[in-house]
Amino acid sequence: MALEKLRKEDTLEMRKRLIGQSCRLFYSDDPVKIVRARGQYLFDENGTRYLDCISNVHHVGHCHPSITAAAAAQMELLNTNTRFLHDNMVVYADRLRATLPEKLCVFYFVNSGSEANDLALRMAQQYTRHDDVIVLDHAYHGHLMSLIDISPYKFRKLAGQKEWVHVAPLPDTYRGLYREDHPDPCQAYADTVQHLIEEVHRKGRKIAAFFAESLPSVGGQIVLPEGTRLKSQSEYVRAAGGVFVADEVQTGFGRVGSHFWAFQLHGEGFCPDIVTMGKPMGNGHPLACVATTVEVAEAFTANGVEYFNTFGGNPVSCAIGLALLDVIEKEDLRGNATRVGAHLKDLLKNLQLRHQIIGDVRGVGLFVGLELVTDRQQKTPATETAARVVKRLKEEDNICVSTDGPWENVVKFKPPMCFSMEDAELVVRCIDRILTGQLHKDAAVYSSYQKMVHRYTDHLQIH
Amino acid sequence: MALEKLRKEDTLEMRKRLIGQSCRLFYSDDPVKIVRARGQYLFDENGTRYLDCISNVHHVGHCHPSITAAAAAQMELLNTNTRFLHDNMVVYADRLRATLPEKLCVFYFVNSGSEANDLALRMAQQYTRHDDVIVLDHAYHGHLMSLIDISPYKFRKLAGQKEWVHVAPLPDTYRGLYREDHPDPCQAYADTVQHLIEEVHRKGRKIAAFFAESLPSVGGQIVLPEGTRLKSQSEYVRAAGGVFVADEVQTGFGRVGSHFWAFQLHGEGFCPDIVTMGKPMGNGHPLACVATTVEVAEAFTANGVEYFNTFGGNPVSCAIGLALLDVIEKEDLRGNATRVGAHLKDLLKNLQLRHQIIGDVRGVGLFVGLELVTDRQQKTPATETAARVVKRLKEEDNICVSTDGPWENVVKFKPPMCFSMEDAELVVRCIDRILTGQLHKDAAVYSSYQKMVHRYTDHLQIH
Repeated sequence: MALEKLRKEDTLEMRKRLIGQSCRLFYSDDPVKIVRARGQYLFDENGTRYLDCISNVHHVGHCHPSITAAAAAQMELLNTNTRFLHDNMVVYADRLRATLPEKLCVFYFVNSGSEANDLALRMAQQYTRHDDVIVLDHAYHGHLMSLIDISPYKFRKLAGQKEWVHVAPLPDTYRGLYREDHPDPCQAYADTVQHLIEEVHRKGRKIAAFFAESLPSVGGQIVLPEGTRLKSQSEYVRAAGGVFVADEVQTGFGRVGSHFWAFQLHGEGFCPDIVTMGKPMGNGHPLACVATTVEVAEAFTANGVEYFNTFGGNPVSCAIGLALLDVIEKEDLRGNATRVGAHLKDLLKNLQLRHQIIGDVRGVGLFVGLELVTDRQQKTPATETAARVVKRLKEEDNICVSTDGPWENVVKFKPPMCFSMEDAELVVRCIDRILTGQLHKDAAVYSSYQKMVHRYTDHLQIH
Repeated sequence: MALEKLRKEDTLEMRKRLIGQSCRLFYSDDPVKIVRARGQYLFDENGTRYLDCISNVHHVGHCHPSITAAAAAQMELLNTNTRFLHDNMVVYADRLRATLPEKLCVFYFVNSGSEANDLALRMAQQYTRHDDVIVLDHAYHGHLMSLIDISPYKFRKLAGQKEWVHVAPLPDTYRGLYREDHPDPCQAYADTVQHLIEEVHRKGRKIAAFFAESLPSVGGQIVLPEGTRLKSQSEYVRAAGGVFVADEVQTGFGRVGSHFWAFQLHGEGFCPDIVTMGKPMGNGHPLACVATTVEVAEAFTANGVEYFNTFGGNPVSCAIGLALLDVIEKEDLRGNATRVGAHLKDLLKNLQLRHQIIGDVRGVGLFVGLELVTDRQQKTPATETAARVVKRLKEEDNICVSTDGPWENVVKFKPPMCFSMEDAELVVRCIDRILTGQLHKDAAVYSSYQKMVHRYTDHLQIH
């Protein structure tokens, strides 16, 4: 095996030749070749260390030794499929059950968040015997055909909106339909869902499900406003015969710090009918899951058709999943997410006082967004500056961040959960320097423009 | 972590309570708890050894030390996503390329055969700008919503056939539309595809793709007859503007022995437009892939939309994939599949001479089917006997086989590729004993029935 032996330009040449170009590279002008990682740090082929602010998948830190040890031990022993009885799957399901409301007690293990959402959609339609789905604007629920259909982020660029899909406004109080200045944005957003349901009914159609990311990610690291009536919305959907699906693929497993699941931010009384989980679940290992109620599970079983997922729930995947739960607890990573996330948000809020370009700072736990705007009144997205911040953080500071949101103007932070206070301070200090330089650079551009105008005016006056 | 510590009845109770009942267990009356495996052997919680004739996923043998070592070494080093450059993915793509016709040189890595087929469908529709798909009867292409639509094996039990899906007869010369007695079954089956295309065109619809498993599996371990015109069929499909997708999820990576891919059985000149691979690819690790041509890949890229698969193509998955290719070569597992597969087929053919219930023995390499019929003329499926053979092999001989085919009367053999001559001899000897006993048992049942009839007749005569 030729491991890490190619020169970077050869790797890049082979990549361009052999891998579909739809699979994009970070920093496409000058991609990074990473050969090693540990905790929140990535190392390139020259040993240069990068601070990783974006690998939410590598939840408890890259290459955590407990995860590797659990995986290797189980791979040595057994890795068969779920048609045989095995303890790992049932013990793991039981551990996940303990993190969820009592009603969510039946599990299906799969290999990716996309497989989980596809299964959730199938279950919702089968349970309700309805077809239609409500989603939030800009949502992304996965790369499979069924999920592109329910992802405005994707279908707008592809086949367009299907007649069975209905898009509710994103409850974004910064730049959405109802903002901070609205007397009750939470109720107003809840009403949009109720109105959408009425519209669907007027068309003679019926709601199977409302899919929502508990914290919309590609929508722009959106934190639903406190008091958001997800509970009301789920009740409207249930009254229409549909189910509420909480997509926790990006946000689960304690990223929000205070709770294990982000939907739990909406209060004790709120319980989705289906929860999908993925990305952080296996710390990079392909592992995902659907949790649901006895009622939904029984309706799914009722047709008598087997659901078999070749790799889903195998002993190795479940051993890794169990090890991850242990690490979250032992290392108090939820506590760390709460503390470091709050510190990071505070530092960014301070930065906002000094940089007009920072329109909004929002987040919960280690899910944080920094929205850049060229004009705080108009909230014009500062897309180019956001791209420059990403590029300069990489080139000058060896820090990896990326952008999200419909205008790619939200710098996002979703680091491994071992991210430290010092890491937060470093990245904010560097952003400060870049934005300050940017200001000077903008000022310099402006001043050279002024000079040019003056020269031109002089020229006109001479002649 | 509570590993292998539960009593079997507790594991079973937790499984029933926590895991969706659509996820079925083998031997549902008395499921097996497997705690350890090596090569072609499974071990239960009491240390009882089972010979595994069905785990095609564990391609080079359960828990192969080379695979475990490669996985652990890479997990310790790095497991990030494909937005960073890494050697493993490009080196692996290059190794796969070397096994395929020159035209199939662009790769997309995913986590399951289902994800691969979903992506293949999406690519086919995007490349051709057509919607419709032809599939073979009884085909199974995966558990995702898009794939249930193109899997007669599933959609007949679920939502039914969509208007954009067209089912061609399965080229099964044993019990299909055209049989061994037909002058040219290969051309006759090819003609059915051409007729189907004409019918689709008459409806004003257009063909995007013809999906076919190179050796139909759940269809009943079907070996397409020698001389099958897959080449002609693919030409008909291309003439209609569609592409040919070879589903190698069950059959790739040398299972057929003589070739690396089962579609290569159809001659040098035959090249699909898309090949999907999965199950055996990672020896149990969630790893799958789509290979296609530059033309299809470019059309897929042309819409400017990124394809990102969170776990697909990560360094650990690719390290495992590479290690698997090495083991196939080093241990000459294709040679072994050819030799042991031929021996197994010979032994079963001999058995057929002595057991009327064996209607057909077919296979290539270590992909072998034994079709049981109560009547060789009518070919009435001996479904119950097949189930009894499966049950008794497990209970009396600790051998795992299972059944396939629309009537579940085909005993299938798809063992790990290290399956030995002795293993083949053992399983055939045991089947011989069971079928002989079965005959005696049937005779005994018949004789007791006769006696009952006589008694009843006597009774009538007396009164």
